[in-house]
Amino acid sequence: MSPGTVHCVGLGPGDPELMSVRADRLVRAARHVAFFRKAGRPGRARAIVEGMLRGDAVEYPMEYPVTTEIPLDDPRYNDLLSAFYAQCTAHLRALAEAGEDVVVLCEGDPFFYGSFMHLHARLRDHVPVRIVPAVTGMSAAWTATDMPVTWGDDVLTVLMGTLPEADLARGAAQADALVVMKVGRNLPKIARALAAAGKADRAWLVEYASMEGQSVVPLAEAGARVAPYFSIVVVHGQGRRP
Amino acid sequence: MSPGTVHCVGLGPGDPELMSVRADRLVRAARHVAFFRKAGRPGRARAIVEGMLRGDAVEYPMEYPVTTEIPLDDPRYNDLLSAFYAQCTAHLRALAEAGEDVVVLCEGDPFFYGSFMHLHARLRDHVPVRIVPAVTGMSAAWTATDMPVTWGDDVLTVLMGTLPEADLARGAAQADALVVMKVGRNLPKIARALAAAGKADRAWLVEYASMEGQSVVPLAEAGARVAPYFSIVVVHGQGRRP
Repeated sequence: MSPGTVHCVGLGPGDPELMSVRADRLVRAARHVAFFRKAGRPGRARAIVEGMLRGDAVEYPMEYPVTTEIPLDDPRYNDLLSAFYAQCTAHLRALAEAGEDVVVLCEGDPFFYGSFMHLHARLRDHVPVRIVPAVTGMSAAWTATDMPVTWGDDVLTVLMGTLPEADLARGAAQADALVVMKVGRNLPKIARALAAAGKADRAWLVEYASMEGQSVVPLAEAGARVAPYFSIVVVHGQGRRP
Repeated sequence: MSPGTVHCVGLGPGDPELMSVRADRLVRAARHVAFFRKAGRPGRARAIVEGMLRGDAVEYPMEYPVTTEIPLDDPRYNDLLSAFYAQCTAHLRALAEAGEDVVVLCEGDPFFYGSFMHLHARLRDHVPVRIVPAVTGMSAAWTATDMPVTWGDDVLTVLMGTLPEADLARGAAQADALVVMKVGRNLPKIARALAAAGKADRAWLVEYASMEGQSVVPLAEAGARVAPYFSIVVVHGQGRRP
């Protein structure tokens, strides 16, 4: 029997109309559908395709054993996640080896800070794996600001809000255009780092880009709010513009 | 009469199946279709939608008066381009003010180094303008390498190959993951800058990502070739991976 293929399908930033034509086709045709989610939640990727799955689709939710309960640098964090990824891999691999195609739903663009990469590294030597790239959350965020993020030869830097404040400030100082992802409770730290880099007054906070409840506010007016984890800070470049 | 809307539709990296569902719908329904192209060429954006346009679609090619014939820092370059953008804007604005919707075809993601931004700045205060974000060329490039570009808290930096060598080397040294766009005849300079930054041995040259003729080779093996202008160099991050 020839093996099935594991399709990792990037779904984009959240608006189902921003899925690619290929992603739309694969999702609607899928017999086996897998997706990550936090335990007890419906799952963000799964929510994007609500109403699109076949009636006989078999769903395989992959529930993280831990998210923020254990610090990243605790060895137990790594052990728990490794065991979890191994278990997910075994399930997907068994399906593919039985000749079944599987669609793994991934928010955003899979190879850009996506969780699937941990399964990809474990699957790729054993069964066929195909990746469908997608619109990134940051593209939706800068589009939501209604201003181009980069002009001419602007340098764009993408930083994770989880980085130490000094790293954020140094990265922000060196960039022309800037995107900070994984904002959430890191917002005050990010705001301080951008102020140190002289970019706070040009920064925008974008929440729920391309989704219901989309919000774009100057960072200076965001105050002490706790932003959603997947909100994004954008600082536009100022490059050449004829 | 209520004005029409100018839809700037990102088409993605080149594979028509990577267009978004919204882009596909807008392109197929469009009565007026505008696109940039080099004089005497069919146009890269136009080529992506070949076979998709309505039979009665009215096409408006916007031909650059100059591309590489005059150096960027020559004042005539700026004057020629400004006049060109003003002329394109006048045409699109007149259509919208006559109540017609217009679809402007844009390669890649419009607000990410896209040419439409020059029309957007001139149109946005006069007629409704909507942007459809898209899969970037760099997403297609890192997907083509079959390796995730960023892990954990990796910093991603995007550099234009047109930058001076010292700027490229400094930007490359500070990044975890790296993308260099606008490669073309800048390839030898980019290779030297990456070598100076200690990243040349991990760099990949991606040509025609997602398109016919896609090629992925280690930069070290690219030799003295002249890469297509829109080829992309990718250096993958090495961040945390449980």
